[in-house]
Amino acid sequence: MSMSLYEASIPTFLHTLHSLKTILEKAVSHAETRKFDPNVFASMRLYPDMLPLNRQVQIASDAAKGAAARLSGTEPPKFEDNEVTMAELVMRVTKTIDYLQSFKAEQFTGAETRVITIKSPRATLNFTAVDFVRHWAVPNFYFHVTTAYALLRHGGVEIGKLDFLGAVPQA
Amino acid sequence: MSMSLYEASIPTFLHTLHSLKTILEKAVSHAETRKFDPNVFASMRLYPDMLPLNRQVQIASDAAKGAAARLSGTEPPKFEDNEVTMAELVMRVTKTIDYLQSFKAEQFTGAETRVITIKSPRATLNFTAVDFVRHWAVPNFYFHVTTAYALLRHGGVEIGKLDFLGAVPQA
Repeated sequence: MSMSLYEASIPTFLHTLHSLKTILEKAVSHAETRKFDPNVFASMRLYPDMLPLNRQVQIASDAAKGAAARLSGTEPPKFEDNEVTMAELVMRVTKTIDYLQSFKAEQFTGAETRVITIKSPRATLNFTAVDFVRHWAVPNFYFHVTTAYALLRHGGVEIGKLDFLGAVPQA
Repeated sequence: MSMSLYEASIPTFLHTLHSLKTILEKAVSHAETRKFDPNVFASMRLYPDMLPLNRQVQIASDAAKGAAARLSGTEPPKFEDNEVTMAELVMRVTKTIDYLQSFKAEQFTGAETRVITIKSPRATLNFTAVDFVRHWAVPNFYFHVTTAYALLRHGGVEIGKLDFLGAVPQA
């Protein structure tokens, strides 16, 4: 068996969104144990002109839901990007998980022949679906989840790479 | 077309290793322009008990070469992990690129049926090849490349997400 585009994207997003949820929850516990407001993490940045934690989580969510929608030829739900507390960020991840779980592999049938177009103020990009998954959607997603992890790790939260990798099903 | 395990791993590693090389080179230019030793970056960390930049690069390299070897049923080359300068780290990335480029898709034929075993002091993990690629090798790889990026970004190097994503071939 090789991987369909569904297999190469949705399980990746779901698996790592569960990890992201765990990481955010560990940050909350960390703050509660030390009796400071966990929500200060939501606006923290690794560098003044980098995006804060809430934007990292929102963009990871967007990368995943946008990819699912584009590959299935549907419209993604609009999320308001108004999360400012850790509880709201955990909810955003949960909503994204719920949305991705609503897809069935059959909805991606024929996705291989789609050209995926990404428009930004700077440029319009046209990808084959395979290149979109492996060189755009998935790296973009991991980039923001890992940056969220690094930011919290830098902020003293006791997390490790196994929290990021999660528990992988055994053969 | 769906993705073979070769298609789902080797082009991902190659594409992002080229990005990593660019990012390391930009860090060198940044230091040279400001007249400080670029090699201070090699031992920098985002947090005292996180791994320094040179280890992040070495582990990203190991994730990629280990995956190629395991999926093709061959032995990976041993690299000494003795890089301490930025030039040596760039060379490590280049050696990894050269090694991955030596693989042909046919060498991965039948990889789907392999059980991939990872032994660590803590546990022995047995993955299906598909789960190994999408839930272990690829996330591990992105985790360390993104951490290298975040560390340099935090260290003031003027890089952006497009340096990480690289130029994706257009449909």
